[in-house]
Amino acid sequence: MFTHTHALQYEAKPDGPDPAYARRLQEVLGGQWGEMTVATQYLLQGWNCRLPGKYKDMLLAIGTEELAHVEILVTLIDRLLDHQPLKPDSADRTKEAAAGFGNTNPQHAIVNGGGAYYRDSMGLPWSGGYVTASGNLMADFNYNATAEMMGRLQVSRLYNMTDDPGVKETLRFLLARDHYHQMQWLKAIEELKVDGLENIPVPEAFPMDEEPEEFAYAFLDASDGPDAAAGSWASGPAIDGTDKQLSARRIEATADAPILPPGDPRLYGTPPMPGEGLLQKAKDLLK
Amino acid sequence: MFTHTHALQYEAKPDGPDPAYARRLQEVLGGQWGEMTVATQYLLQGWNCRLPGKYKDMLLAIGTEELAHVEILVTLIDRLLDHQPLKPDSADRTKEAAAGFGNTNPQHAIVNGGGAYYRDSMGLPWSGGYVTASGNLMADFNYNATAEMMGRLQVSRLYNMTDDPGVKETLRFLLARDHYHQMQWLKAIEELKVDGLENIPVPEAFPMDEEPEEFAYAFLDASDGPDAAAGSWASGPAIDGTDKQLSARRIEATADAPILPPGDPRLYGTPPMPGEGLLQKAKDLLK
Amino acid sequence: MFTHTHALQYEAKPDGPDPAYARRLQEVLGGQWGEMTVATQYLLQGWNCRLPGKYKDMLLAIGTEELAHVEILVTLIDRLLDHQPLKPDSADRTKEAAAGFGNTNPQHAIVNGGGAYYRDSMGLPWSGGYVTASGNLMADFNYNATAEMMGRLQVSRLYNMTDDPGVKETLRFLLARDHYHQMQWLKAIEELKVDGLENIPVPEAFPMDEEPEEFAYAFLDASDGPDAAAGSWASGPAIDGTDKQLSARRIEATADAPILPPGDPRLYGTPPMPGEGLLQKAKDLLK
Amino acid sequence: MFTHTHALQYEAKPDGPDPAYARRLQEVLGGQWGEMTVATQYLLQGWNCRLPGKYKDMLLAIGTEELAHVEILVTLIDRLLDHQPLKPDSADRTKEAAAGFGNTNPQHAIVNGGGAYYRDSMGLPWSGGYVTASGNLMADFNYNATAEMMGRLQVSRLYNMTDDPGVKETLRFLLARDHYHQMQWLKAIEELKVDGLENIPVPEAFPMDEEPEEFAYAFLDASDGPDAAAGSWASGPAIDGTDKQLSARRIEATADAPILPPGDPRLYGTPPMPGEGLLQKAKDLLK
Amino acid sequence: MFTHTHALQYEAKPDGPDPAYARRLQEVLGGQWGEMTVATQYLLQGWNCRLPGKYKDMLLAIGTEELAHVEILVTLIDRLLDHQPLKPDSADRTKEAAAGFGNTNPQHAIVNGGGAYYRDSMGLPWSGGYVTASGNLMADFNYNATAEMMGRLQVSRLYNMTDDPGVKETLRFLLARDHYHQMQWLKAIEELKVDGLENIPVPEAFPMDEEPEEFAYAFLDASDGPDAAAGSWASGPAIDGTDKQLSARRIEATADAPILPPGDPRLYGTPPMPGEGLLQKAKDLLK
Amino acid sequence: MFTHTHALQYEAKPDGPDPAYARRLQEVLGGQWGEMTVATQYLLQGWNCRLPGKYKDMLLAIGTEELAHVEILVTLIDRLLDHQPLKPDSADRTKEAAAGFGNTNPQHAIVNGGGAYYRDSMGLPWSGGYVTASGNLMADFNYNATAEMMGRLQVSRLYNMTDDPGVKETLRFLLARDHYHQMQWLKAIEELKVDGLENIPVPEAFPMDEEPEEFAYAFLDASDGPDAAAGSWASGPAIDGTDKQLSARRIEATADAPILPPGDPRLYGTPPMPGEGLLQKAKDLLK
Repeated sequence: MFTHTHALQYEAKPDGPDPAYARRLQEVLGGQWGEMTVATQYLLQGWNCRLPGKYKDMLLAIGTEELAHVEILVTLIDRLLDHQPLKPDSADRTKEAAAGFGNTNPQHAIVNGGGAYYRDSMGLPWSGGYVTASGNLMADFNYNATAEMMGRLQVSRLYNMTDDPGVKETLRFLLARDHYHQMQWLKAIEELKVDGLENIPVPEAFPMDEEPEEFAYAFLDASDGPDAAAGSWASGPAIDGTDKQLSARRIEATADAPILPPGDPRLYGTPPMPGEGLLQKAKDLLK
Repeated sequence: MFTHTHALQYEAKPDGPDPAYARRLQEVLGGQWGEMTVATQYLLQGWNCRLPGKYKDMLLAIGTEELAHVEILVTLIDRLLDHQPLKPDSADRTKEAAAGFGNTNPQHAIVNGGGAYYRDSMGLPWSGGYVTASGNLMADFNYNATAEMMGRLQVSRLYNMTDDPGVKETLRFLLARDHYHQMQWLKAIEELKVDGLENIPVPEAFPMDEEPEEFAYAFLDASDGPDAAAGSWASGPAIDGTDKQLSARRIEATADAPILPPGDPRLYGTPPMPGEGLLQKAKDLLK
Repeated sequence: MFTHTHALQYEAKPDGPDPAYARRLQEVLGGQWGEMTVATQYLLQGWNCRLPGKYKDMLLAIGTEELAHVEILVTLIDRLLDHQPLKPDSADRTKEAAAGFGNTNPQHAIVNGGGAYYRDSMGLPWSGGYVTASGNLMADFNYNATAEMMGRLQVSRLYNMTDDPGVKETLRFLLARDHYHQMQWLKAIEELKVDGLENIPVPEAFPMDEEPEEFAYAFLDASDGPDAAAGSWASGPAIDGTDKQLSARRIEATADAPILPPGDPRLYGTPPMPGEGLLQKAKDLLK
Repeated sequence: MFTHTHALQYEAKPDGPDPAYARRLQEVLGGQWGEMTVATQYLLQGWNCRLPGKYKDMLLAIGTEELAHVEILVTLIDRLLDHQPLKPDSADRTKEAAAGFGNTNPQHAIVNGGGAYYRDSMGLPWSGGYVTASGNLMADFNYNATAEMMGRLQVSRLYNMTDDPGVKETLRFLLARDHYHQMQWLKAIEELKVDGLENIPVPEAFPMDEEPEEFAYAFLDASDGPDAAAGSWASGPAIDGTDKQLSARRIEATADAPILPPGDPRLYGTPPMPGEGLLQKAKDLLK
Repeated sequence: MFTHTHALQYEAKPDGPDPAYARRLQEVLGGQWGEMTVATQYLLQGWNCRLPGKYKDMLLAIGTEELAHVEILVTLIDRLLDHQPLKPDSADRTKEAAAGFGNTNPQHAIVNGGGAYYRDSMGLPWSGGYVTASGNLMADFNYNATAEMMGRLQVSRLYNMTDDPGVKETLRFLLARDHYHQMQWLKAIEELKVDGLENIPVPEAFPMDEEPEEFAYAFLDASDGPDAAAGSWASGPAIDGTDKQLSARRIEATADAPILPPGDPRLYGTPPMPGEGLLQKAKDLLK
Repeated sequence: MFTHTHALQYEAKPDGPDPAYARRLQEVLGGQWGEMTVATQYLLQGWNCRLPGKYKDMLLAIGTEELAHVEILVTLIDRLLDHQPLKPDSADRTKEAAAGFGNTNPQHAIVNGGGAYYRDSMGLPWSGGYVTASGNLMADFNYNATAEMMGRLQVSRLYNMTDDPGVKETLRFLLARDHYHQMQWLKAIEELKVDGLENIPVPEAFPMDEEPEEFAYAFLDASDGPDAAAGSWASGPAIDGTDKQLSARRIEATADAPILPPGDPRLYGTPPMPGEGLLQKAKDLLK
């Protein structure tokens, strides 16, 4: 259960309006790697977590914090949308304004009446499909670390797209939190190993001797880039707790070209042999 | 540019038909974490890669291999769809069959005429939005490692949902490749660090002194789970190349509740003050 | 069954082309609250209506009218797209034009060859998911009233975004129809009550004594805004035909923190306890 | 900013597992009218609200409560997924089980490892497009009232699809809250009128004398159902604060069939007149 | 403008309920190739058609007919949903029923209360993106012919999935109309040629001498299937009005491997060369 | 199985950057009719093809070629994105630049860091739903011919939207291939007929005598355009191998208005008759 305070976790006050930038900020609110994703993802992973204790508690704590970041971004976008020009003639005082006007999101005015929404910078609605809670903490924490990397990367790019000191101040806070959260997930990944809960490959509990070994330790090269096997992924020790060595070889086919049987005539796929006889037979079958 | 051989990279021959299982296998063909995603993602990251050499070459090599896995899964599903019952009465010889029939995908028959397609196990089409190529290899390789973990996790679950030896044989191959590919990405992540190209936090090149330090090294606890700060993420050394120490504290608001200015009356949001006077004023403005 | 005349229900002739505005108008053609939604929604509610008589007849009548509004908007957009500039250099005679060019929809030219389509102002395709026909007329009529409110709100905003007299003339017609249709649905809601068919709460037929009464009449305050309970929703009489009084109180948890049992080991979720023993046990189980 | 407690607002303990029912419950978690929608919608309306005071405070209070309902439903679904059968043969002890197995969601096992997610009962991901915050409180509160009606309607139907006492207990709580929330929004709509803030038609501030009056008060009958005009929507007083009378008439066209000018030849639409001459002319133009 | 009669174009009366089949029929109502698609597509092509006369008139006539087919399918599905079992125990009298119950669509009951909706047989909402109106009648008519082929194919498969005489009677009508409409579009394609309006390749008006001829008449073989060039597509006369001959050759690369320049450092892509020096340089640039 | 070479099938080198044009080119990479669609569609049709020989071999050959076109377009877009301006002030040197800046895609910078992705020109992700492989080659080849027509049409429009010689050079190659591929599919359609495999109407194998003949050869006119029946589709010989004649008549209803039975009271649709008695009865039923 949640409670809410109107006070913000961090200030969200631009020095002036900038509707074109408001559109761009939507990416880190409602885009695939935005705050909506991490908030709802960490909460779902926490609720679904069947292992009581520190991991579950931590997931619910950070998910709740991310809700505050959603709130901060909505507030920032709302303020950037003040005085949004409704027609090109309101925008033409400078060429910068003309360029900026062209890049605004019409839905900010027509649909929302000057407010943010849960969509990305191209207007694609946020999707519940962005969220994964697999039940396997190693896989999930790697996804979470990725999400913080992508999030900080996008915020850092947005940081270079504005000169507004107030906006930059809020982004600095988000960059710091994404910085910390990257470390948090990477340390949690190590802790899963130390605790003996999960390891590589995911899922560790699947019995490795079921796998054909010649495919479990080899880089298979399917292209002609000369350096594809010049990395540590193509030689040296495996990192799955075994003493295997990695190697590289050219990809090759190991099975024949497949031949599919004819389909059910009641589905009217193109029949395997031509001729009226076959068509007639199909018709007879269906009578 | 690509060339193709009809021969398969690995055998894809079930011992018998199983349309309900064919539906389930769609998840690892056309789902968020399926083979379509990794194939098109590695290729896109490779094509977009602005750093010539081993990383770009490796991305294009593995992306091309994954196309062969798409082909293997399509073939496997096609064969599982042979003799798909079109009506419940074809299914009733056993209760198992009745249960299985209920779990088939009607589109396999109505739309595809007995073939696979690029959708997941609930019929949601594969989306280009599943693919991320951020241009930052550290972020992308973490995503790639996650994709292989999620992929192997799903295949291992599917492995426990069938008794068909032919299907299990193909899944074992996919499990082995996902096993190797997990190691590949994790080793490539380490190699990026060794090469001095990327490190933590992503993006490393963003100047850290722009961040408010009090938010860059602290776990902020927003929930009441007693063990949320009992992990290494809430104490001990940072892992970003600095000598900072991590700490934990209760989340707190640092900014006042936001007060938004009234909106543009031409957008007809609810006005800030009641009374006919204001409505009249809005109407006057608009005349 | 339908018949069609080429004559329009109302004129749709802009005084001049305006491709940027054509993009904006797409919102009320193919957006969530546009004419496609109300046309197909009222028709579906009418066809699905299991209560013969005035409500069903009215639904099919208004749904058919809305099809004419779809036609009007398509025609209006088609004409606004005349002389769409294909390159920025065609747009540069004025800064207004440069701003407008930036806000055009490239698909209007590349995909449609100068015509409208069923997408919103950000290019998101219209979705059958926008339509609800619940079978409960009280719920549906409230949705319909909302749709007309949102529709008129969006058209009134668009009215303030153009100076073209011909466009404004068509919008005035749509505003009038949305005005009337709001009254239509609100009066129909009252008539459902008078007819004894439906009332509050929806669905009225669900037996109220099944509900825990302490949760059926109380505003539960989960935030710290000082005035949250200062409205009629937190005191005074209920409006569900009972003589209950509404009240307010602080939200509180009434159940313990949930503890989930361990998951099925065949799904490879992170196990409840660490140690090789458990992993071994899982592997043994799977052999 | 939010804080969270692990304790639940209400108990969520089924008496036994039922994976087929877990799939069905997804509708009110991640469907268009589910708890994700109302939680994120009320919060967004609250954050975007430019009118300080009771309405804004109330929106943020109820949005925060709805987050607790998301949590309750996730917990309920998680528990219903215990012991999900992975193959048809696990389901065949009874025909009920066989039927139930057919109706399970494969992603609950393959993707989530036995947990809930943000999708509906047919596996469609929750969409940010379900949420509307128009800035006009009258329109938004009507949508909110609708959402509570649709929500309670769906929960009441689900109530009749299970015999599990624990599930029914949780649903009773949700039914009671939806009952109260319907009254809450309907009373808030009345309060907006009393406060002089908004009225019918939405948006009230648009000047009515801009509308062609002959279309603002008339039911236009476009179908042949005999009773379409037999309701109060086709006669009697208007409810928009004027003294106008409603009336009904047959729909009729008031404008000629539109004739569109030929398109830009550079877009290669089919030209207005046949003949090689024209094609040649188009080609000449393009040289 | 449209008018509507309650009478149906054709009878839609199943002999008995069959909710599992109702789910399947959704494919040809709200699927990609269903009646919603052709109705809205032909109307849009007609409205957008800038060439007055027989083609435009015909498009609007057939689009209007297809609306009647939407109505027929909705009615058929509604009736098949009568007596939909709400729980498995209602389904267990026979194994057929158990299998059928598993294949029902829960939204038919929970969301629609026993009615059809605009989604396909897997619950994916109909999308405005299914509709194309390119402005080029040759391209559009080929799409229309395809749509009728796919439509009739799906209906013929559905015909083999039921034994209900009433359902089969309605499907026979739809099969006949799809039969006729296939001929209609194919004849219209020929008529476009006879009229000198459009020909192959689409768009004919693009000047062919702009194309590199060595790529305009050759089958390029990129796979090793032995018979890929054994068809008329790889030899014999071209069909574009020229006297060229078609030929076949092995695919080959004609350009070097691309080398992309380094990216903008403000976007934080992985830099082209390792070393602290570069990172420092990027940081300096950004200060 | 596939192999890849870094060398391109054709050159993809623009003479200069043009981020606004890069956005537009996304349409033919990741739009409905773009290269992603044809590549994955031809491959899927080939893999699913149950008829061994020339058709299957040809499908896999051309699908593989199309993958090379995806690669070419990604490379072209990447290069057009060089020096993408991050702020309006970078764009304001000319009005053309201001207009162009307005038309850029923010995700190219924020999400991709200066690279292409699998979305269309309005940012909608490519969808697996664009792909159809019906199993019936006649239907599929008609779709393929359409796809090449739409593709060439869009490329020809894009050709008129740029003056960059390098871009135009690449587009000329694509136009030539789309030119050839149109002929390829149309010739393959004829070959299916010659081979006696498929004919009109699709599916030919469905027995025509099941259809009501009065609906299989008649144009039904549902609109008032005077020339709707003035084409060859409304008279003259059928083209389905019979000796029937086509004709035209006005559309008419042949069945009564449908009357649906009352719904299941447990679904709480609005009941057929008013009165407390009925509500009471429903409540009694549910106890």
